[in-house]
Amino acid sequence: MNWIDEVPWDQEGLVSAIAQDAASGRILMVAWMNREALQQTVARQEAVYWSRSRKKLWHKGEESGHVQKVLEVRLDCDADAILLQVEQAGGIACHTGRESCFFRKLEDGRWVSTDPVLKDPKLIYGDQ
Amino acid sequence: MNWIDEVPWDQEGLVSAIAQDAASGRILMVAWMNREALQQTVARQEAVYWSRSRKKLWHKGEESGHVQKVLEVRLDCDADAILLQVEQAGGIACHTGRESCFFRKLEDGRWVSTDPVLKDPKLIYGDQ
Repeated sequence: MNWIDEVPWDQEGLVSAIAQDAASGRILMVAWMNREALQQTVARQEAVYWSRSRKKLWHKGEESGHVQKVLEVRLDCDADAILLQVEQAGGIACHTGRESCFFRKLEDGRWVSTDPVLKDPKLIYGDQ
Repeated sequence: MNWIDEVPWDQEGLVSAIAQDAASGRILMVAWMNREALQQTVARQEAVYWSRSRKKLWHKGEESGHVQKVLEVRLDCDADAILLQVEQAGGIACHTGRESCFFRKLEDGRWVSTDPVLKDPKLIYGDQ
């Protein structure tokens, strides 16, 4: 069986993918992949996701320059998810200009933003 | 707005939850939570998931003893996922007796099990 057929694609043909910074161990983001996204990720050794909102392949960093070099691809036991070990270009994974998309922490019943914005998104994406 | 209402529950009322070992940074597992699971997780400070297959709340470790003490709860920017920092009792999160559910790594077009079984599942769960 081809390795890509061992991934239990859901009814929509997707699997969730977690990107972890290989150096810091920080979880950077979670996104979706379809078969083509995962195949391209492995072939390019750069993360390619499937954008559910835009309904197209999304080569992470194509606009921002914040590409993710993929060092390792893992699959879990009941194969709900893919785990990527990545080198994050620019040290910024989040569209808000933060290192990680997980910048909100639950503190005393509130989600509190704990992480600094490293670069103004307008400087990353242009003044859209 | 209540913090739990800020979590964008999907059509099935679920969100995916990632458990990361707070000490090693290793991703241990990905599972699902509904509102009650997340509320119980925060109240108990131990991970409680929603089992989609058994259709019931699942206090992680209830059979195996491998509970997850929750140190931190985070939410991502587009709120696709919850991230838990945990202390993993027994050092085993996976039902296969391994530290992490992500024990398979893609190598030359094959998923290869790279992690040792730390404890025989029969000893964890009994000879079911």
